[in-house]
Amino acid sequence: MKDGRRVYLDNATTTRVDSRVIEEMVRFLEKDFAVPSSIFSHKDGLIAKEAVEKVRKLICKNLNVKEGEIIFTSGGTEGNNMVLKGLLNKIKGKHVITTGIEHLSVLNVIKFLEREGVRVSYIPVDSYGFVDLDKLKTLITKDTALVSVQYVNQEVGTVQNLKKIGKIVKEKGVLFHTDAAIGFPYFDIDVEEMGLDFVTISAHKFYGPKGVGAIYVRDLSLLSPIFHGGYNEFNLRPGTENVPGIVGLGKALEIFNKNENQKVKELKYYLLKKIKEEIEDIRVNSPVDKSHPGILNITFYFIEGESIVLRMDMEGVSLITGSACFSKSLEASHVLLSMGLTHEIAHGSIRFSLSKYNTREEIDYTVEALKETVRFLRKLSPLKREE
Amino acid sequence: MKDGRRVYLDNATTTRVDSRVIEEMVRFLEKDFAVPSSIFSHKDGLIAKEAVEKVRKLICKNLNVKEGEIIFTSGGTEGNNMVLKGLLNKIKGKHVITTGIEHLSVLNVIKFLEREGVRVSYIPVDSYGFVDLDKLKTLITKDTALVSVQYVNQEVGTVQNLKKIGKIVKEKGVLFHTDAAIGFPYFDIDVEEMGLDFVTISAHKFYGPKGVGAIYVRDLSLLSPIFHGGYNEFNLRPGTENVPGIVGLGKALEIFNKNENQKVKELKYYLLKKIKEEIEDIRVNSPVDKSHPGILNITFYFIEGESIVLRMDMEGVSLITGSACFSKSLEASHVLLSMGLTHEIAHGSIRFSLSKYNTREEIDYTVEALKETVRFLRKLSPLKREE
Repeated sequence: MKDGRRVYLDNATTTRVDSRVIEEMVRFLEKDFAVPSSIFSHKDGLIAKEAVEKVRKLICKNLNVKEGEIIFTSGGTEGNNMVLKGLLNKIKGKHVITTGIEHLSVLNVIKFLEREGVRVSYIPVDSYGFVDLDKLKTLITKDTALVSVQYVNQEVGTVQNLKKIGKIVKEKGVLFHTDAAIGFPYFDIDVEEMGLDFVTISAHKFYGPKGVGAIYVRDLSLLSPIFHGGYNEFNLRPGTENVPGIVGLGKALEIFNKNENQKVKELKYYLLKKIKEEIEDIRVNSPVDKSHPGILNITFYFIEGESIVLRMDMEGVSLITGSACFSKSLEASHVLLSMGLTHEIAHGSIRFSLSKYNTREEIDYTVEALKETVRFLRKLSPLKREE
Repeated sequence: MKDGRRVYLDNATTTRVDSRVIEEMVRFLEKDFAVPSSIFSHKDGLIAKEAVEKVRKLICKNLNVKEGEIIFTSGGTEGNNMVLKGLLNKIKGKHVITTGIEHLSVLNVIKFLEREGVRVSYIPVDSYGFVDLDKLKTLITKDTALVSVQYVNQEVGTVQNLKKIGKIVKEKGVLFHTDAAIGFPYFDIDVEEMGLDFVTISAHKFYGPKGVGAIYVRDLSLLSPIFHGGYNEFNLRPGTENVPGIVGLGKALEIFNKNENQKVKELKYYLLKKIKEEIEDIRVNSPVDKSHPGILNITFYFIEGESIVLRMDMEGVSLITGSACFSKSLEASHVLLSMGLTHEIAHGSIRFSLSKYNTREEIDYTVEALKETVRFLRKLSPLKREE
């Protein structure tokens, strides 16, 4: 911006940690630095134990947990691996249902399970990423052992109706997992009402630290550990407990403010309105009213997302695209393609993801820069029709 | 102590994070909070990428890495799991050699591998924990695929001669792994000279944060990932990079001061001298001259370690014991038993582990409290001969 500050609109990748979270973490890095497993030996261990159990309880309360436990992980990827690989012995030779728009830490684990003899079906989603509930019903057979559907999508922000999905899944007596890394705690989760057996959460998506997350597990006996070692976390996750990370997660959850959710949402609508006013030939890929408060995915026709992102970066705005060249897998966004959109739409897609730290001033600046960027790139584009 | 402060002598479990490390972490929690995988999208990602690569280089320099790579993990337990389970496809049906004094994150993974069809031998160790080099030579057969020997022991501090072990292992063309979670960077590691193919390190053992570690891998193609997901860390460790943790590890390594090592060692000798002067009927279980600068393991005959630890905790001193009742596995220290010591010696064992933060004053206080504690407990002990 004019004062040299950058505008960070990549908050669905990771968020800035709240200063109150940092304060809590620093206490457990510097002063109360012992670990819960020392509880039988000394009072320093007890302090750590109490802090960690407090966070476990807080998560339980947020998820309305009546049975089962919370296990701390190193983040969303480990969480999804722990649940899905941890079930391998139970689901080998059986049937698993998921979607094509999951995060890679679900999709690529499912592909691994497929190689290990699990049969997999993908529920189709519509052009805004909503799963087809009728199709889900027909996909469930007597062999189906698990349904894994994300809560909120990482690229377009689509929020699934877990209550309806859970009802269908539970009627058939099938296990139900949701990757809520993007959705929690932006949207409520009630494991009882939604019939959830497993939930994956991640701290750094809601102003907490990276390197820490948790999973909810209704029945611990279903999972085999993927790490072996000591006897922490109900014998399911050995390793020295990341106490500063865990209390950071807890603080971020404690201070999470649904009113700020509303503020972010209003800013997203403001961004959308301004883009619509200033730039033509776009497709809004997010279901704006039923999506993450901060996520807005838009395709700018006739130009490549990577060109937009590069020029916007030079203007000081951080964004990402669903275009192929920007992905380590060198493939266009699997989310947009699974939604039935064309490669052209995927290549021109930009994800704006806002946080409580963004301001109207930043959005004004962003749209101004974007308008110029799109105009410039379209002038060069062989795809843009002459006017 | 008199001023109410506690004396923390459990630093081999975990250390207080250095304030310079915290300062660096806070920068990456609050200001430069983006992730390296965003490098293709924006400058914020580039800053994170550069910070992480700087740490990778620093570790390489410290290990004298000429070929191979550093992969960041969530800590020592994940590191050991990544190496040992990551090799499963390569070593199935083959032979692995380790010791009985390894950390549980090696021992229990090895037991898992055994169930998967790996044959395992344990090199005997002497009564101070040193592996029998001649026996190692005879154990290696043409089927042997891997030797895994820790650098420094977690309970008694014994430092293995990795140069000699590596020479034996390499002459037979066998892969060599060391769990250096306790040893690094207190003692030098040279992967070339020691013939190491894999090294596990952990940050929170040397004044860095919990929840982060790294492994050195000479040949990435040998390992299968234990997590599936995105394409970070050479496709071997998906998940959002824990940048604040990684830069914390880097800072802790950068400021690690071998002179402070010497200071800690002198304090350990001072502690030992005072205990010997004040308390009789003890066995020093650590090889004091060839052990970790901060670790001193001593058995107080005729009494139980848990009673000592509990009373010392009441006196404000944090210690641990190798006694059974204090272990989640309800077994006496597998390290002391593997060293051929009796259950009685294990039950009466106390581990003192010092850090650069401990002072002479704290040691004086500790020995005074210990003297009284041992005297009191021995009075009650049915094992203590009447005098």
